[in-house]
Amino acid sequence: MQQQHVLILGGGFAGLACAKALNDERFRITLVDRWNHHLFQPLLYQVATAGLTMAEVAQPLRSILAAHKNVTTLMDDVTRIDLDAKQVHLQEHVLSYDYLVIGLGAKTGYFGHPEWAEHTIGLKSLNDAMSIRKEVLLAFERAESADNPAETAKQLTMVVVGGGPTGVEMAGSLAELSQVVLKEDFRRIDPSLARVHLVEAGAKLLPSFPAELSEYTRLRLEKMGVTVHLNSPVREVGDGYVVTGAGRIESKIIVWAAGVEASEVTRTLMGIPLDRSGRIEVQPDLSLPGHPEVFAAGDLVALIDPNGVRVPGVSPAAIQMGQFIAKLIPSEGMAIPRSAFVYWDKGSMATIGRKAAVVSLSGVQVHGFPAWLIWLFVHLLFLMGMRNRASVFLHWVWSYFTWQRGARIIQP
Amino acid sequence: MQQQHVLILGGGFAGLACAKALNDERFRITLVDRWNHHLFQPLLYQVATAGLTMAEVAQPLRSILAAHKNVTTLMDDVTRIDLDAKQVHLQEHVLSYDYLVIGLGAKTGYFGHPEWAEHTIGLKSLNDAMSIRKEVLLAFERAESADNPAETAKQLTMVVVGGGPTGVEMAGSLAELSQVVLKEDFRRIDPSLARVHLVEAGAKLLPSFPAELSEYTRLRLEKMGVTVHLNSPVREVGDGYVVTGAGRIESKIIVWAAGVEASEVTRTLMGIPLDRSGRIEVQPDLSLPGHPEVFAAGDLVALIDPNGVRVPGVSPAAIQMGQFIAKLIPSEGMAIPRSAFVYWDKGSMATIGRKAAVVSLSGVQVHGFPAWLIWLFVHLLFLMGMRNRASVFLHWVWSYFTWQRGARIIQP
Repeated sequence: MQQQHVLILGGGFAGLACAKALNDERFRITLVDRWNHHLFQPLLYQVATAGLTMAEVAQPLRSILAAHKNVTTLMDDVTRIDLDAKQVHLQEHVLSYDYLVIGLGAKTGYFGHPEWAEHTIGLKSLNDAMSIRKEVLLAFERAESADNPAETAKQLTMVVVGGGPTGVEMAGSLAELSQVVLKEDFRRIDPSLARVHLVEAGAKLLPSFPAELSEYTRLRLEKMGVTVHLNSPVREVGDGYVVTGAGRIESKIIVWAAGVEASEVTRTLMGIPLDRSGRIEVQPDLSLPGHPEVFAAGDLVALIDPNGVRVPGVSPAAIQMGQFIAKLIPSEGMAIPRSAFVYWDKGSMATIGRKAAVVSLSGVQVHGFPAWLIWLFVHLLFLMGMRNRASVFLHWVWSYFTWQRGARIIQP
Repeated sequence: MQQQHVLILGGGFAGLACAKALNDERFRITLVDRWNHHLFQPLLYQVATAGLTMAEVAQPLRSILAAHKNVTTLMDDVTRIDLDAKQVHLQEHVLSYDYLVIGLGAKTGYFGHPEWAEHTIGLKSLNDAMSIRKEVLLAFERAESADNPAETAKQLTMVVVGGGPTGVEMAGSLAELSQVVLKEDFRRIDPSLARVHLVEAGAKLLPSFPAELSEYTRLRLEKMGVTVHLNSPVREVGDGYVVTGAGRIESKIIVWAAGVEASEVTRTLMGIPLDRSGRIEVQPDLSLPGHPEVFAAGDLVALIDPNGVRVPGVSPAAIQMGQFIAKLIPSEGMAIPRSAFVYWDKGSMATIGRKAAVVSLSGVQVHGFPAWLIWLFVHLLFLMGMRNRASVFLHWVWSYFTWQRGARIIQP
């Protein structure tokens, strides 16, 4: 029997879930990713703030899929998708497919101001996280050897733009780093004088959470020393400063966690409708209009499901989409009409700092220490690879008791 | 009482040992290093071969010295030492000193062929280790997507130059990576077809070890699939090849573990005798001739001790020198003649691979599994930081039972 070729672009939550679930000898699968690893994005901010190492939040795709003998992994860049020729152009190769799954994900978005990218650091890739870590640790080093107080103050001011979960987690983690972790390490400066600003355009933090949890998060962050600016849309970003509705902040470290847009490869899809952020407006079955053999999954998809829910760009949604497609492909030709993808909202959570998190799940709200335990448990559970789980657990237990962070190496 | 200023250049084994041992309120210490971390060099090859992460072999200098309130750490580059003015020029500052300790270490040396550096990777810094890891993992990726067998073979050929402990450990670890760790990960290539060549100019591996251990090491490496070339001095290195006395090897990955030379800063020491490799020819008390207030320690020192032993460039010697100087400085002015530094040889060891190592200690020779256990124990013991010890131990136990390596992330 001739195997059909399923080409999956992207080894993120969507692509990987699809490759793992399509464990069927009738299909030959090729998974293409620009890196050799799957990245556990929800913990990326801990790499950025020196709590975890790269290897703890990333797992080689090849080792995840070692037992899946029908999957070939290729490390390469996707440059163009030719839907009519049923071909995908990579940097090094051109691959043909019978089925295509596009899971290339999203990158940092700047709301029509691409020039701001130059002065800020996003938080979407390992590269971003390593850059933030390096800049933050170097800022303290520069402050320690600075000759005047104004320079010291500027070095020790950090801005996080975006009050969603990533921004909140990042701001909280930066505050703990300076208030507690680095406290004893310097002789000329007091690291606890460092200032972390969290800038949000809207009226509350964590917009998708209930109001009480948003308010709890704001109070908790302020208690940790974070200056929270609400109703403060960013007007301008330049070299060493950011201007918001509420004023100007001088800072060399501006972390941008405010927006995402789809991978630019979606722009090469001729005749396929995209939304403003480049997301693909898929059919209810996640296929592309006019191309039932091509699917999209993950946070480059724009979709309102049959329950009227706009599917969010979060990892549980990506995994559900990948698995949905893996189920749908083998049933082709069985004369069953395709069903529609329905998003199952498992709730949302965000951690603010040590012993403080918020969890919201269909009407149930938890905050503080219990929410933090839930957060820990869920993240360890979904982290890929037993070794990573053990290592991260060890790291967290260690940090909990010593207030130390283990990954404070400035990368050469 | 006026504190005297002790300036220590370099946070390696020598400088750090000196800073820690000079725990005396009469002295104000400044420790300058170009990075923010102390590096545990003996395990660097495991970072290069994806067994350990950067953070496990490096520890922030500031956190090591957090409790030493008389020590200020500065991250900066030393550009020049002015012995007459008693000043050290850094990139950003000029520092004066009452006592100076030079522990800037060594870098990879090419026996008068600096042009070979371009085509090889040394193994002295985290940067080196990360480069080797990236190149080795990328070579397998490139082989998997190569279109012809010749290209595949070239990608999968690796050369290690230098049959000392570093070269032996590196070659053994590379062989295990391809023969075992990556075995299940690829679909188009067989990683175990990878070839590791170990090239040594002399007649035996591990020149400083007894002949039986050298021979055991050679046999063991060959059993692991390493091709050992003895009596094969390197004649030429170019882009993608190396020519030795025994022939030409085509390879894109050439790891250079054959020689070291002292930090180039020693060349700025006016009127101080240096040996061919730039090492400082110190007085018996480790001071510089004519400058009793300036000391050198570690592997940039050329010294034959009172027992006639040439002090080797290994970490125990560096630690002993640093501690010797820390003891000597406070006794100044007490009208005691300075004693001479005597090296205490604690023996040598090298690991070849899983369950195989060699240990040589004043006539006692151990090899195989017992030697491997000794090696493990000693390295865990001397690794800095409890968290690193726990994390490395976990990593090793994990790798022992699963044959996996946890740090196989190609760095973005």
